Amino acid sequence: MRVKITVEYDGTSYCGWQRQINGISVQQVIEEAIYKVTGENVKITGSGRTDAGVHAKGQVAHFDTEGSIPAEKFSFALNTVLPPDIKVKKSEAVSCDFNARKSAKKKTYSYTVYYDETPSPLKERYAYRMAERPDINKMRSAAKLICGKHDFKSFCASKSGAKTTVRTVYSIKIINSADKTVFKICGNGFLYNMVRIIVGTLIKIGLDKMTEKELADMLSEKNRSLGGKTLPANGLCLDCVVYGK
Amino acid sequence: MRVKITVEYDGTSYCGWQRQINGISVQQVIEEAIYKVTGENVKITGSGRTDAGVHAKGQVAHFDTEGSIPAEKFSFALNTVLPPDIKVKKSEAVSCDFNARKSAKKKTYSYTVYYDETPSPLKERYAYRMAERPDINKMRSAAKLICGKHDFKSFCASKSGAKTTVRTVYSIKIINSADKTVFKICGNGFLYNMVRIIVGTLIKIGLDKMTEKELADMLSEKNRSLGGKTLPANGLCLDCVVYGK
Repeated sequence: MRVKITVEYDGTSYCGWQRQINGISVQQVIEEAIYKVTGENVKITGSGRTDAGVHAKGQVAHFDTEGSIPAEKFSFALNTVLPPDIKVKKSEAVSCDFNARKSAKKKTYSYTVYYDETPSPLKERYAYRMAERPDINKMRSAAKLICGKHDFKSFCASKSGAKTTVRTVYSIKIINSADKTVFKICGNGFLYNMVRIIVGTLIKIGLDKMTEKELADMLSEKNRSLGGKTLPANGLCLDCVVYGK
Repeated sequence: MRVKITVEYDGTSYCGWQRQINGISVQQVIEEAIYKVTGENVKITGSGRTDAGVHAKGQVAHFDTEGSIPAEKFSFALNTVLPPDIKVKKSEAVSCDFNARKSAKKKTYSYTVYYDETPSPLKERYAYRMAERPDINKMRSAAKLICGKHDFKSFCASKSGAKTTVRTVYSIKIINSADKTVFKICGNGFLYNMVRIIVGTLIKIGLDKMTEKELADMLSEKNRSLGGKTLPANGLCLDCVVYGK
Protein backbone atom coordinates (compact mmCIF):
# COMPACT_ATOMS: atom_id res chain seq x y z
CA MET A 1 0.00 0.00 0.00
CA ARG A 2 1.24 3.46 -0.87
CA VAL A 3 0.50 6.16 1.70
CA LYS A 4 0.55 9.90 1.07
CA ILE A 5 1.22 12.06 4.12
CA THR A 6 0.84 15.83 4.52
CA VAL A 7 3.33 17.10 7.06
CA GLU A 8 3.65 20.33 9.03
CA TYR A 9 6.95 21.19 10.67
CA ASP A 10 8.82 23.92 12.48
CA GLY A 11 12.17 23.62 10.71
CA THR A 12 14.20 25.60 13.25
CA SER A 13 15.95 22.60 14.77
CA TYR A 14 16.50 20.58 11.59
CA CYS A 15 19.14 20.50 8.86
CA GLY A 16 16.32 20.51 6.30
CA TRP A 17 13.95 17.95 4.84
CA GLN A 18 16.50 15.61 3.30
CA ARG A 19 18.70 13.17 5.20
CA GLN A 20 22.21 14.54 5.78
CA ILE A 21 25.32 13.05 7.30
CA ASN A 22 25.63 15.98 9.70
CA GLY A 23 22.48 16.93 11.52
CA ILE A 24 18.98 15.59 12.00
CA SER A 25 16.59 15.94 9.09
CA VAL A 26 12.79 15.96 9.03
CA GLN A 27 12.88 12.95 6.69
CA GLN A 28 14.93 10.92 9.16
CA VAL A 29 12.62 11.74 12.08
CA ILE A 30 9.55 10.67 10.09
CA GLU A 31 11.23 7.47 8.85
CA GLU A 32 12.16 6.61 12.43
CA ALA A 33 8.57 7.27 13.51
CA ILE A 34 7.29 4.91 10.79
CA TYR A 35 9.73 2.28 12.03
CA LYS A 36 8.39 2.70 15.58
CA VAL A 37 4.77 2.15 14.58
CA THR A 38 5.20 -0.50 11.83
CA GLY A 39 8.59 -2.12 12.44
CA GLU A 40 9.36 -1.45 8.78
CA ASN A 41 12.43 0.33 7.47
CA VAL A 42 10.91 2.54 4.81
CA LYS A 43 12.29 5.37 2.73
CA ILE A 44 9.93 8.27 2.31
CA THR A 45 9.94 10.49 -0.78
CA GLY A 46 9.12 14.15 -0.25
CA SER A 47 7.74 16.60 -2.84
CA GLY A 48 11.16 18.22 -2.70
CA ARG A 49 13.78 19.39 -0.26
CA THR A 50 13.38 22.26 2.12
CA ASP A 51 16.58 23.86 3.41
CA ALA A 52 17.85 23.99 6.97
CA GLY A 53 15.56 26.13 9.14
CA VAL A 54 12.76 26.35 6.56
CA HIS A 55 9.25 25.54 7.81
CA ALA A 56 6.40 23.66 6.15
CA LYS A 57 2.66 23.85 6.63
CA GLY A 58 1.91 21.34 3.89
CA GLN A 59 4.93 19.31 2.80
CA VAL A 60 3.84 16.10 1.08
CA ALA A 61 5.61 12.73 1.04
CA HIS A 62 4.81 9.12 0.18
CA PHE A 63 6.00 5.72 1.32
CA ASP A 64 5.09 2.08 0.81
CA THR A 65 4.07 -0.15 3.69
CA GLU A 66 2.95 -3.73 4.15
CA GLY A 67 1.76 -3.11 7.69
CA SER A 68 -1.80 -3.41 8.93
CA ILE A 69 -2.41 0.21 9.93
CA PRO A 70 -5.15 1.68 7.69
CA ALA A 71 -3.74 4.56 5.61
CA GLU A 72 -5.98 7.21 7.16
CA LYS A 73 -4.94 6.14 10.68
CA PHE A 74 -1.23 6.66 10.02
CA SER A 75 -1.40 10.36 10.94
CA PHE A 76 -2.70 9.53 14.40
CA ALA A 77 -0.26 6.65 14.93
CA LEU A 78 2.78 8.65 13.77
CA ASN A 79 1.83 11.72 15.80
CA THR A 80 2.00 9.70 19.02
CA VAL A 81 5.73 9.16 18.43
CA LEU A 82 6.70 12.31 16.48
CA PRO A 83 8.19 15.31 18.36
CA PRO A 84 6.06 18.48 18.83
CA ASP A 85 7.79 20.28 15.95
CA ILE A 86 6.86 17.67 13.30
CA LYS A 87 3.29 16.38 12.89
CA VAL A 88 1.41 14.54 10.15
CA LYS A 89 -1.75 16.52 9.40
CA LYS A 90 -3.28 13.97 7.03
CA SER A 91 -2.58 10.45 5.74
CA GLU A 92 -4.38 8.71 2.89
CA ALA A 93 -4.05 5.72 0.56
CA VAL A 94 -2.91 6.55 -2.98
CA SER A 95 -2.39 4.47 -6.08
CA CYS A 96 1.10 3.13 -6.75
CA ASP A 97 1.70 5.56 -9.60
CA PHE A 98 1.47 8.51 -7.19
CA ASN A 99 4.91 9.97 -6.53
CA ALA A 100 5.16 12.89 -4.10
CA ARG A 101 8.03 14.40 -6.09
CA LYS A 102 7.27 13.52 -9.70
CA SER A 103 3.49 13.98 -9.52
CA ALA A 104 3.71 17.46 -7.95
CA LYS A 105 2.16 20.10 -10.23
CA LYS A 106 2.35 23.30 -8.19
CA LYS A 107 3.99 24.45 -4.99
CA THR A 108 3.22 27.52 -2.95
CA TYR A 109 5.77 29.04 -0.59
CA SER A 110 5.21 31.99 1.71
CA TYR A 111 7.88 34.35 2.95
CA THR A 112 7.04 36.59 5.90
CA VAL A 113 8.75 39.88 6.72
CA TYR A 114 7.94 41.83 9.90
CA TYR A 115 8.74 45.45 10.63
CA ASP A 116 10.37 46.45 13.87
CA GLU A 117 13.28 48.60 15.02
CA THR A 118 14.46 45.87 17.41
CA PRO A 119 14.23 42.08 17.11
CA SER A 120 10.98 40.54 18.38
CA PRO A 121 11.49 37.16 20.12
CA LEU A 122 7.82 36.29 19.51
CA LYS A 123 8.00 36.94 15.74
CA GLU A 124 11.59 36.07 14.86
CA ARG A 125 11.02 32.32 14.63
CA TYR A 126 8.70 32.56 11.63
CA ALA A 127 9.54 35.90 10.03
CA TYR A 128 12.46 38.02 8.88
CA ARG A 129 12.83 41.45 10.47
CA MET A 130 13.27 44.70 8.59
CA ALA A 131 13.45 48.13 10.18
CA GLU A 132 12.46 49.93 6.99
CA ARG A 133 9.25 49.25 5.09
CA PRO A 134 9.66 48.64 1.35
CA ASP A 135 7.24 50.25 -1.15
CA ILE A 136 4.50 47.69 -1.76
CA ASN A 137 3.37 49.09 -5.11
CA LYS A 138 6.90 48.96 -6.52
CA MET A 139 7.26 45.35 -5.35
CA ARG A 140 3.87 44.37 -6.82
CA SER A 141 4.77 45.93 -10.15
CA ALA A 142 8.18 44.18 -10.24
CA ALA A 143 6.58 40.86 -9.24
CA LYS A 144 4.68 40.88 -12.55
CA LEU A 145 8.01 40.67 -14.42
CA ILE A 146 8.98 37.56 -12.47
CA CYS A 147 5.69 35.74 -13.13
CA GLY A 148 5.66 33.48 -16.16
CA LYS A 149 8.05 30.93 -17.68
CA HIS A 150 11.66 32.09 -17.43
CA ASP A 151 15.18 30.77 -17.13
CA PHE A 152 15.70 31.49 -13.43
CA LYS A 153 19.47 30.82 -13.52
CA SER A 154 20.12 34.19 -11.90
CA PHE A 155 17.66 33.34 -9.11
CA CYS A 156 19.39 30.28 -7.73
CA ALA A 157 22.39 29.58 -5.57
CA SER A 158 25.45 28.45 -7.51
CA LYS A 159 25.47 25.04 -5.85
CA SER A 160 22.09 24.19 -7.40
CA GLY A 161 22.50 20.98 -9.38
CA ALA A 162 19.28 21.27 -11.39
CA LYS A 163 19.36 19.97 -14.98
CA THR A 164 17.37 22.90 -16.27
CA THR A 165 16.89 26.27 -14.64
CA VAL A 166 13.67 27.04 -16.54
CA ARG A 167 10.66 27.30 -14.22
CA THR A 168 7.19 28.80 -14.35
CA VAL A 169 6.05 31.16 -11.60
CA TYR A 170 2.24 31.24 -11.69
CA SER A 171 1.62 34.02 -9.20
CA ILE A 172 3.20 36.24 -6.57
CA LYS A 173 0.77 37.70 -4.04
CA ILE A 174 2.04 40.37 -1.69
CA ILE A 175 -0.23 40.61 1.35
CA ASN A 176 0.42 43.68 3.44
CA SER A 177 -0.73 44.38 6.98
CA ALA A 178 0.13 46.78 9.81
CA ASP A 179 3.22 45.01 11.07
CA LYS A 180 4.17 42.54 8.34
CA THR A 181 4.17 41.60 4.66
CA VAL A 182 3.64 38.06 3.38
CA PHE A 183 4.87 37.08 -0.09
CA LYS A 184 3.00 34.05 -1.47
CA ILE A 185 4.74 32.55 -4.49
CA CYS A 186 3.21 29.75 -6.54
CA GLY A 187 5.14 27.93 -9.27
CA ASN A 188 5.64 24.57 -10.93
CA GLY A 189 8.89 24.11 -9.04
CA PHE A 190 11.65 26.13 -7.46
CA LEU A 191 15.44 26.10 -7.74
CA TYR A 192 17.78 26.08 -4.76
CA ASN A 193 17.19 29.32 -2.77
CA MET A 194 14.95 30.65 -5.56
CA VAL A 195 12.10 31.91 -3.35
CA ARG A 196 14.47 33.60 -0.94
CA ILE A 197 16.31 35.31 -3.80
CA ILE A 198 13.05 36.43 -5.49
CA VAL A 199 11.79 38.01 -2.26
CA GLY A 200 15.20 39.55 -1.54
CA THR A 201 15.20 41.08 -5.03
CA LEU A 202 11.64 42.41 -4.73
CA ILE A 203 12.55 44.02 -1.40
CA LYS A 204 15.65 45.59 -2.95
CA ILE A 205 13.35 47.18 -5.55
CA GLY A 206 10.85 48.20 -2.85
CA LEU A 207 13.67 49.97 -1.01
CA ASP A 208 14.69 51.86 -4.19
CA LYS A 209 18.05 50.09 -4.35
CA MET A 210 17.26 48.38 -7.65
CA THR A 211 15.08 49.26 -10.65
CA GLU A 212 12.64 47.18 -12.68
CA LYS A 213 15.05 47.59 -15.60
CA GLU A 214 17.78 45.95 -13.54
CA LEU A 215 15.39 43.13 -12.66
CA ALA A 216 14.68 42.61 -16.37
CA ASP A 217 18.45 42.53 -16.99
CA MET A 218 18.88 40.01 -14.18
CA LEU A 219 16.33 37.73 -15.85
CA SER A 220 17.81 38.09 -19.35
CA GLU A 221 21.51 38.16 -18.45
CA LYS A 222 21.14 35.29 -16.00
CA ASN A 223 23.52 36.92 -13.58
CA ARG A 224 22.88 36.19 -9.89
CA SER A 225 25.14 39.03 -8.74
CA LEU A 226 22.67 41.66 -9.94
CA GLY A 227 19.90 40.54 -7.56
CA GLY A 228 18.95 41.05 -3.95
CA LYS A 229 20.37 39.01 -1.12
CA THR A 230 19.23 35.52 -0.23
CA LEU A 231 16.95 36.12 2.75
CA PRO A 232 17.32 33.91 5.85
CA ALA A 233 15.49 30.59 6.18
CA ASN A 234 13.31 31.48 9.19
CA GLY A 235 10.86 33.57 7.14
CA LEU A 236 10.22 30.79 4.59
CA CYS A 237 7.43 28.21 4.69
CA LEU A 238 6.31 25.58 2.17
CA ASP A 239 2.56 26.21 2.31
CA CYS A 240 1.19 23.52 0.02
CA VAL A 241 1.87 21.15 -2.85
CA VAL A 242 -0.81 20.57 -5.48
CA TYR A 243 -1.21 17.29 -7.38
CA GLY A 244 -3.44 16.28 -10.26
CA LYS A 245 -3.58 16.56 -14.01
CA MET B 1 20.31 56.25 37.61
CA ARG B 2 17.20 54.08 37.54
CA VAL B 3 16.45 52.46 34.20
CA LYS B 4 13.08 51.04 33.12
CA ILE B 5 13.21 48.31 30.50
CA THR B 6 10.40 46.81 28.47
CA VAL B 7 11.20 43.21 27.61
CA GLU B 8 9.79 40.75 25.08
CA TYR B 9 10.54 37.06 25.49
CA ASP B 10 9.67 33.64 24.22
CA GLY B 11 9.33 31.81 27.53
CA THR B 12 9.51 28.28 26.10
CA SER B 13 13.06 27.56 27.28
CA TYR B 14 12.88 29.30 30.66
CA CYS B 15 11.73 28.33 34.15
CA GLY B 16 9.85 31.64 34.31
CA TRP B 17 10.73 35.25 35.00
CA GLN B 18 12.05 34.84 38.52
CA ARG B 19 15.42 33.36 39.48
CA GLN B 20 15.17 29.72 40.53
CA ILE B 21 17.68 27.25 41.87
CA ASN B 22 16.77 24.74 39.17
CA GLY B 23 16.61 26.12 35.66
CA ILE B 24 17.47 29.31 33.86
CA SER B 25 15.15 32.27 34.37
CA VAL B 26 14.58 35.32 32.21
CA GLN B 27 15.65 37.53 35.13
CA GLN B 28 18.99 35.75 35.41
CA VAL B 29 19.72 36.06 31.69
CA ILE B 30 18.99 39.80 31.74
CA GLU B 31 21.05 40.37 34.90
CA GLU B 32 23.96 38.53 33.28
CA ALA B 33 23.57 40.67 30.15
CA ILE B 34 23.68 43.84 32.27
CA TYR B 35 26.86 42.53 33.90
CA LYS B 36 28.39 41.95 30.46
CA VAL B 37 27.75 45.50 29.28
CA THR B 38 28.31 47.45 32.54
CA GLY B 39 30.46 45.20 34.75
CA GLU B 40 27.89 45.79 37.49
CA ASN B 41 26.13 43.07 39.48
CA VAL B 42 22.61 44.42 39.56
CA LYS B 43 19.32 42.93 40.67
CA ILE B 44 16.42 43.72 38.41
CA THR B 45 12.84 44.02 39.66
CA GLY B 46 10.11 42.85 37.32
CA SER B 47 6.46 43.95 37.34
CA GLY B 48 5.71 40.45 38.57
CA ARG B 49 6.56 36.85 37.89
CA THR B 50 5.60 34.94 34.81
CA ASP B 51 5.51 31.15 35.12
CA ALA B 52 7.66 28.61 33.30
CA GLY B 53 6.87 28.63 29.58
CA VAL B 54 4.81 31.83 29.67
CA HIS B 55 5.70 34.48 27.07
CA ALA B 56 5.84 38.26 27.35
CA LYS B 57 5.44 40.98 24.77
CA GLY B 58 5.77 43.81 27.28
CA GLN B 59 7.17 42.71 30.63
CA VAL B 60 8.59 45.70 32.52
CA ALA B 61 11.52 45.77 34.94
CA HIS B 62 13.78 48.34 36.57
CA PHE B 63 17.33 48.41 37.84
CA ASP B 64 19.83 50.93 39.17
CA THR B 65 23.14 51.53 37.45
CA GLU B 66 26.13 53.80 37.95
CA GLY B 67 27.52 53.04 34.52
CA SER B 68 28.01 55.51 31.69
CA ILE B 69 25.58 54.02 29.16
CA PRO B 70 22.72 56.47 28.53
CA ALA B 71 19.40 54.93 29.65
CA GLU B 72 17.87 54.94 26.16
CA LYS B 73 20.94 53.15 24.74
CA PHE B 74 20.64 50.21 27.14
CA SER B 75 18.19 48.37 24.90
CA PHE B 76 20.68 48.34 22.03
CA ALA B 77 23.64 47.42 24.26
CA LEU B 78 21.79 44.60 26.03
CA ASN B 79 20.38 43.20 22.79
CA THR B 80 23.89 42.63 21.45
CA VAL B 81 24.51 40.12 24.27
CA LEU B 82 20.99 38.76 24.91
CA PRO B 83 19.88 35.49 23.23
CA PRO B 84 17.32 35.63 20.36
CA ASP B 85 14.45 34.62 22.67
CA ILE B 86 14.87 37.58 25.05
CA LYS B 87 15.15 41.18 23.79
CA VAL B 88 14.78 44.61 25.37
CA LYS B 89 12.31 46.57 23.25
CA LYS B 90 12.77 49.89 25.06
CA SER B 91 14.92 51.39 27.80
CA GLU B 92 14.40 54.75 29.47
CA ALA B 93 15.48 56.75 32.53
CA VAL B 94 12.93 56.93 35.33
CA SER B 95 12.86 58.67 38.69
CA CYS B 96 14.03 56.75 41.72
CA ASP B 97 10.50 56.38 43.07
CA PHE B 98 9.52 54.30 40.05
CA ASN B 99 9.22 50.64 40.98
CA ALA B 100 8.34 48.15 38.24
CA ARG B 101 6.36 46.01 40.67
CA LYS B 102 4.84 48.49 43.13
CA SER B 103 4.06 51.24 40.60
CA ALA B 104 2.22 48.90 38.20
CA LYS B 105 -1.44 49.92 37.83
CA LYS B 106 -2.77 47.54 35.20
CA LYS B 107 -1.61 44.41 33.45
CA THR B 108 -2.99 42.85 30.31
CA TYR B 109 -2.48 39.19 29.52
CA SER B 110 -3.58 37.40 26.37
CA TYR B 111 -4.37 33.72 26.10
CA THR B 112 -4.56 32.20 22.61
CA VAL B 113 -6.48 29.07 21.69
CA TYR B 114 -6.31 27.55 18.18
CA TYR B 115 -8.68 25.04 16.66
CA ASP B 116 -7.37 21.97 14.92
CA GLU B 117 -8.00 18.23 14.92
CA THR B 118 -4.26 17.50 15.04
CA PRO B 119 -1.44 19.46 16.68
CA SER B 120 0.08 22.22 14.53
CA PRO B 121 3.87 22.58 14.98
CA LEU B 122 3.69 26.15 13.62
CA LYS B 123 1.01 27.27 16.11
CA GLU B 124 1.71 25.13 19.17
CA ARG B 125 4.49 27.31 20.53
CA TYR B 126 2.22 30.29 21.21
CA ALA B 127 -1.25 28.81 21.45
CA TYR B 128 -3.22 26.02 23.09
CA ARG B 129 -4.97 23.57 20.79
CA MET B 130 -8.61 22.57 21.03
CA ALA B 131 -10.42 20.26 18.62
CA GLU B 132 -13.86 21.57 19.56
CA ARG B 133 -14.87 25.22 19.28
CA PRO B 134 -16.52 26.69 22.40
CA ASP B 135 -19.58 28.95 22.10
CA ILE B 136 -18.27 32.51 21.96
CA ASN B 137 -21.50 34.17 23.09
CA LYS B 138 -21.72 31.98 26.19
CA MET B 139 -18.10 32.80 27.04
CA ARG B 140 -18.65 36.55 26.52
CA SER B 141 -21.71 36.49 28.74
CA ALA B 142 -19.89 34.58 31.50
CA ALA B 143 -16.87 36.89 31.23
CA LYS B 144 -19.09 39.76 32.45
CA LEU B 145 -19.53 37.95 35.78
CA ILE B 146 -15.76 37.75 36.25
CA CYS B 147 -15.15 41.44 35.54
CA GLY B 148 -15.13 43.69 38.58
CA LYS B 149 -13.66 43.51 42.08
CA HIS B 150 -13.91 40.03 43.53
CA ASP B 151 -12.19 37.66 45.88
CA PHE B 152 -10.52 35.40 43.31
CA LYS B 153 -9.51 32.72 45.84
CA SER B 154 -11.17 30.06 43.70
CA PHE B 155 -9.21 31.27 40.66
CA CYS B 156 -5.71 30.65 41.96
CA ALA B 157 -3.47 27.66 42.47
CA SER B 158 -3.27 26.49 46.06
CA LYS B 159 0.43 27.30 46.30
CA SER B 160 -0.27 30.99 45.78
CA GLY B 161 1.20 32.89 48.72
CA ALA B 162 -0.67 36.16 48.13
CA LYS B 163 -1.70 38.14 51.25
CA THR B 164 -5.08 38.99 49.79
CA THR B 165 -6.90 37.23 46.99
CA VAL B 166 -9.05 40.25 46.13
CA ARG B 167 -8.33 41.60 42.65
CA THR B 168 -10.10 43.77 40.10
CA VAL B 169 -10.55 42.53 36.55
CA TYR B 170 -11.20 45.60 34.35
CA SER B 171 -12.06 43.85 31.11
CA ILE B 172 -12.10 40.53 29.27
CA LYS B 173 -12.13 40.82 25.48
CA ILE B 174 -12.72 37.66 23.48
CA ILE B 175 -11.45 38.13 19.92
CA ASN B 176 -12.62 35.41 17.59
CA SER B 177 -11.28 34.56 14.14
CA ALA B 178 -11.42 31.69 11.66
CA ASP B 179 -8.83 29.47 13.32
CA LYS B 180 -8.32 30.90 16.79
CA THR B 181 -9.71 32.83 19.76
CA VAL B 182 -7.69 35.31 21.79
CA PHE B 183 -8.76 36.18 25.35
CA LYS B 184 -7.39 39.57 26.47
CA ILE B 185 -7.70 40.07 30.22
CA CYS B 186 -6.87 43.35 31.91
CA GLY B 187 -6.72 43.73 35.67
CA ASN B 188 -4.93 45.49 38.53
CA GLY B 189 -3.01 42.30 39.28
CA PHE B 190 -3.33 38.55 38.96
CA LEU B 191 -2.93 35.66 41.36
CA TYR B 192 -0.85 32.55 40.65
CA ASN B 193 -2.37 30.79 37.58
CA MET B 194 -5.39 33.15 37.69
CA VAL B 195 -5.50 33.99 33.97
CA ARG B 196 -5.12 30.36 32.96
CA ILE B 197 -7.91 29.30 35.35
CA ILE B 198 -10.24 32.12 34.18
CA VAL B 199 -9.79 31.11 30.53
CA GLY B 200 -10.12 27.41 31.37
CA THR B 201 -13.39 28.17 33.20
CA LEU B 202 -14.78 30.33 30.36
CA ILE B 203 -13.99 27.53 27.91
CA LYS B 204 -15.73 24.98 30.15
CA ILE B 205 -18.84 27.21 29.99
CA GLY B 206 -18.42 27.65 26.22
CA LEU B 207 -18.39 23.86 25.86
CA ASP B 208 -21.61 23.53 27.92
CA LYS B 209 -19.80 21.67 30.70
CA MET B 210 -20.49 24.40 33.26
CA THR B 211 -23.23 26.98 33.73
CA GLU B 212 -23.10 30.68 34.60
CA LYS B 213 -24.78 29.77 37.88
CA GLU B 214 -21.87 27.44 38.70
CA LEU B 215 -19.44 30.25 37.84
CA ALA B 216 -21.29 32.55 40.26
CA ASP B 217 -21.05 29.81 42.89
CA MET B 218 -17.34 29.43 42.20
CA LEU B 219 -16.85 33.16 42.83
CA SER B 220 -18.96 33.25 46.00
CA GLU B 221 -17.97 29.88 47.48
CA LYS B 222 -14.30 30.43 46.73
CA ASN B 223 -13.88 26.81 45.75
CA ARG B 224 -11.24 26.15 43.08
CA SER B 225 -12.51 22.62 42.42
CA LEU B 226 -15.67 23.95 40.75
CA GLY B 227 -13.77 25.68 37.93
CA GLY B 228 -12.20 24.76 34.64
CA LYS B 229 -8.72 23.34 34.31
CA THR B 230 -5.56 25.42 34.46
CA LEU B 231 -4.63 25.77 30.80
CA PRO B 232 -1.01 25.16 29.74
CA ALA B 233 1.58 27.95 29.79
CA ASN B 234 2.33 28.07 26.05
CA GLY B 235 -0.89 29.97 25.21
CA LEU B 236 -0.25 32.73 27.75
CA CYS B 237 1.49 36.05 27.12
CA LEU B 238 1.97 39.13 29.32
CA ASP B 239 1.03 41.80 26.77
CA CYS B 240 1.65 45.02 28.70
CA VAL B 241 1.98 46.68 32.05
CA VAL B 242 0.55 50.15 32.58
CA TYR B 243 2.01 52.68 35.03
CA GLY B 244 0.83 56.09 36.16
CA LYS B 245 -1.59 57.59 38.63
